[in-house]
Amino acid sequence: MNITLAQAEKIVSAAKEKAKSLDTKMNIAVVDAGANLVAFARMDGAWLGSLDISIKKAKTARYFDMNTGAVGELSQPGGSLYNIEHSNNGLITFPGGVPIKNGSEEIIGAIGVSGSSVENDQAVAEAGAAAL
Amino acid sequence: MNITLAQAEKIVSAAKEKAKSLDTKMNIAVVDAGANLVAFARMDGAWLGSLDISIKKAKTARYFDMNTGAVGELSQPGGSLYNIEHSNNGLITFPGGVPIKNGSEEIIGAIGVSGSSVENDQAVAEAGAAAL
Amino acid sequence: MNITLAQAEKIVSAAKEKAKSLDTKMNIAVVDAGANLVAFARMDGAWLGSLDISIKKAKTARYFDMNTGAVGELSQPGGSLYNIEHSNNGLITFPGGVPIKNGSEEIIGAIGVSGSSVENDQAVAEAGAAAL
Amino acid sequence: MNITLAQAEKIVSAAKEKAKSLDTKMNIAVVDAGANLVAFARMDGAWLGSLDISIKKAKTARYFDMNTGAVGELSQPGGSLYNIEHSNNGLITFPGGVPIKNGSEEIIGAIGVSGSSVENDQAVAEAGAAAL
Repeated sequence: MNITLAQAEKIVSAAKEKAKSLDTKMNIAVVDAGANLVAFARMDGAWLGSLDISIKKAKTARYFDMNTGAVGELSQPGGSLYNIEHSNNGLITFPGGVPIKNGSEEIIGAIGVSGSSVENDQAVAEAGAAAL
Repeated sequence: MNITLAQAEKIVSAAKEKAKSLDTKMNIAVVDAGANLVAFARMDGAWLGSLDISIKKAKTARYFDMNTGAVGELSQPGGSLYNIEHSNNGLITFPGGVPIKNGSEEIIGAIGVSGSSVENDQAVAEAGAAAL
Repeated sequence: MNITLAQAEKIVSAAKEKAKSLDTKMNIAVVDAGANLVAFARMDGAWLGSLDISIKKAKTARYFDMNTGAVGELSQPGGSLYNIEHSNNGLITFPGGVPIKNGSEEIIGAIGVSGSSVENDQAVAEAGAAAL
Repeated sequence: MNITLAQAEKIVSAAKEKAKSLDTKMNIAVVDAGANLVAFARMDGAWLGSLDISIKKAKTARYFDMNTGAVGELSQPGGSLYNIEHSNNGLITFPGGVPIKNGSEEIIGAIGVSGSSVENDQAVAEAGAAAL
């Protein structure tokens, strides 16, 4: 099972709405089951540096089928996955990346959001993922 | 002057319509005046390898404010820009990348399209750029 | 549809047999539908430089769902895809990369072979792809 | 002395068996004495992000002729090899990478395993290395 463009666009649209409701400006990326980009939107005035971060968050969430923040808890100094961020051409392991599941609970892609606090990034990513 | 997300989405939408009318499956990327990605869509079943190419076409068109095909005419063996593709982390210099202008003829971004013949890629890119 | 490891190993095994019958030493790579590596084997004494080439051939064949040599015919100076090799972190566009199809003619991955003449590379890749 | 493909395949096979016995899905990479890939297998459903990690673990283990976890103990903040992960296009220094020795205790390659907890990764890597 793989995400369709129509599904990805619905997710981006929901994420944008949530970002607006939080008065934030986000970069929003959706990747498919193969961790390849399907849809992307950068809201006007969003941080330029968050463009790459949003894509890396989406990829990271699909690479390990978990929220990016969960990876980050394990990659701290002394943690079991310390410095895992050096793999895969650079991971981002703080919150804002969330796997996307279909109705059968299969992972079909992931969303990555960056542009505000990690709490806001995560909230927007979850709103996007919940749109399916 | 810089492209807005609303303008970029209008362009992507027009490009998708043109792609469908040509019975093709395209990767469509829009960058802003700073050559940074603003919006992206990969149509279901489009070539995976065209993802990166569409983004590189959009960047190339904005890097030099001309159609990518025009750069490619100069980058051939013996040409004045021979192998310019080695710069900027990789250019794509065959057709499918087109600058985007506003009503005042100012360049505010660029579109890159990849997924079919270069003639179809270019036609879809032009249809997108003309949507403003 | 995506290739399984069991299918990929069967393909590598068939490719090795063909390579031996040609008295060659090959690098053999198989990627899945997402262009990610599934199985790899480097035969004893095979060129080291062919390791990366075999993987890039497999990825290239899946990126565009065609034999790598077909891409190379279009990427020559003056061709419609001139210097496409600069995309996707480096393509290899001479023969030796072949899409892998299942019984329903769906592309589920690709094989890339490198280590001898391009004719031998292609013959081994085809023997591998035919093993399913 | 260098590992042969036959030896590497025996190691991958043993690692797969151990992975199945632990009910895990692993990426398994074997490099030779030159730290170049010899054999690789990604089990069905294994994390995509572990593909690169398994190869980097194998390389790291051969680069320094020790278990990757031993490097990681030295690369922590304040440690003597702090952030060594930035070298060699990215090291992975948590457990799962193990040198491979022949009967004469000479190091002839290394195995890297990724896809589960670091304890499981290490157990599978050791099972692979012990197969010779």
